[in-house]
Amino acid sequence: MRIPYDELVAEFNRVLIKKGFDETDALEAAKIFADNSVDGVYSHGVNRFPRVVSYIEKGYIKPDKKAIRVGGSGGFERWDGQLGMGNLNAKRCMDRAVELAGEYGVGVVALGNNNHWMRGGYFGWQAADAGCIGICWTNTMPNMPAWGGKDRRIGNNPFIIAIPRSNGEHVVIDCAMAQFSYGKIEECRLKKIPLPVVGGYDSNGNVTTDPAEIEKTWRVLPIGYWKGSGISIALDLVATVLSGGLSVTAVGKKCEEEYALSQMLIAIDPRHVAAQNISDMLINEVIDDIKASEPATEGGKILYPGEPEILTRRDNLANGIPVLEEIWAQIKAM
Amino acid sequence: MRIPYDELVAEFNRVLIKKGFDETDALEAAKIFADNSVDGVYSHGVNRFPRVVSYIEKGYIKPDKKAIRVGGSGGFERWDGQLGMGNLNAKRCMDRAVELAGEYGVGVVALGNNNHWMRGGYFGWQAADAGCIGICWTNTMPNMPAWGGKDRRIGNNPFIIAIPRSNGEHVVIDCAMAQFSYGKIEECRLKKIPLPVVGGYDSNGNVTTDPAEIEKTWRVLPIGYWKGSGISIALDLVATVLSGGLSVTAVGKKCEEEYALSQMLIAIDPRHVAAQNISDMLINEVIDDIKASEPATEGGKILYPGEPEILTRRDNLANGIPVLEEIWAQIKAM
Repeated sequence: MRIPYDELVAEFNRVLIKKGFDETDALEAAKIFADNSVDGVYSHGVNRFPRVVSYIEKGYIKPDKKAIRVGGSGGFERWDGQLGMGNLNAKRCMDRAVELAGEYGVGVVALGNNNHWMRGGYFGWQAADAGCIGICWTNTMPNMPAWGGKDRRIGNNPFIIAIPRSNGEHVVIDCAMAQFSYGKIEECRLKKIPLPVVGGYDSNGNVTTDPAEIEKTWRVLPIGYWKGSGISIALDLVATVLSGGLSVTAVGKKCEEEYALSQMLIAIDPRHVAAQNISDMLINEVIDDIKASEPATEGGKILYPGEPEILTRRDNLANGIPVLEEIWAQIKAM
Repeated sequence: MRIPYDELVAEFNRVLIKKGFDETDALEAAKIFADNSVDGVYSHGVNRFPRVVSYIEKGYIKPDKKAIRVGGSGGFERWDGQLGMGNLNAKRCMDRAVELAGEYGVGVVALGNNNHWMRGGYFGWQAADAGCIGICWTNTMPNMPAWGGKDRRIGNNPFIIAIPRSNGEHVVIDCAMAQFSYGKIEECRLKKIPLPVVGGYDSNGNVTTDPAEIEKTWRVLPIGYWKGSGISIALDLVATVLSGGLSVTAVGKKCEEEYALSQMLIAIDPRHVAAQNISDMLINEVIDDIKASEPATEGGKILYPGEPEILTRRDNLANGIPVLEEIWAQIKAM
């Protein structure tokens, strides 16, 4: 079934008010959940909503708490999320980073003690909508082995870079440091299809595209093997040191589920050095060149990062957002 | 053969003075080349030196030119490398980023029109030695297909993140967005061994570990397939828009070889929010945990990013730096 955007927002809003959020916060959070689904990231939009509600009920997410500034100076600030709503806190910290970038050219907010921010790409698009380059990442539960190890000790730490274009069709890369999410692996197993490329190890220690085998070992592959493992560790340490919050290691030791994370929100304002039309021209030259590639498959199209989301967004706003009936019934009953 | 550090520096210094550098610049650049070899990155130390000298002779690298500030404000500045020596310009821009970070908490320098900076990791270690988190990247010649395409249109844009520790054993990840460098692929072909994991496509369009097959198609694989392709494009656009320099596309169109690149040097000073001993404690907890992983191979050790360089550095400083006789003879004859 496909639900119109406004109906999705209204339902999320209703439930969040019932769960203790004030009207402003409930509506703002509801829109973020809906926007994530509009862009096609259902796993961190409507499909994630029931789990978020359960986290509110368990007390992991505190509806009456908001991120507050606890340190820093100039363009760099440390904030404490106080275990408030993850996506709201992150959005406000990216707003703050953009504000700092307006003043200092660059703004960095390290946000500790925050809940899951859902889809990291949201905050990249947010920075780009404000005319800024956005760079952000979060740490996670330990969910991937470090390179050379077998047991899960590092995170799949999503990493986002967004570059603004004046037509709103920003270039945004949003990817986790694991080759595949747990959700994708499960989806392929249920559909009985292999992963498109190797995504982890089987019980014999060989890399495989078989989702069921990977689910046995949970040895998922980092992007670029040793490279993604190293990037993941470095991203985690930067967020931890700057926010003073929990590392992936500490989240694994101290939390029953995935909460109290450390996140980085960075904005750089290119308007300090260039007019948007000059930036647009530079960006268009690159995009036009990439799209002129000889396609790897006959008739294939080369998309730039962010373009798939833009195409999905158009379709979903026109035709409604695809929602699993079961999940929708669950939300309606809340 | 193994050459002592001081002898390496002295030789580089002698040649650079002969090629037109003043005494200060020659010695500083000589030390960077030597340091890169000390840390085991021979491809961007001694082995690269003859090519750099040829670029000086061709006029791509201008010994009398230095990077100058051309824009920006607060913590974000745009610099023009004026086609001076790449590693010297990048080093000075990271020095400036560290200075800005001391004042504003964060410093960002976008450096356009610069030559190849050799090993990006150098500037990460440099920031960390100054007590800062260092994040930097460069763009390159077009040397990798965009995801979905066959011909080389994007760069392997090396990306670096460094986190300082008070004992100097910093955590530093330094990796290109291609799974393997061209040098590594050639090395495996000459040794007649396969790549350790798939690194590109063969003529039939299948991924392969065969270096000779990849050299036929030059379709090298980005880390994480579509993910590394997207990160590469985004890193390129940020550096291009902020520096006002050439994109990977423009370098490919305008330069005969790899010069006039765009680079980003970012420093964040964690001392604005935390004492170094607190950061050390947080970092050690993560490293200790990772190193306690169950090894994937019996007796295997798990190294943190930067640790291999530290081990190599100790060995090379004690026993001299491994140098290919042929290259050394070439340099001695200059």
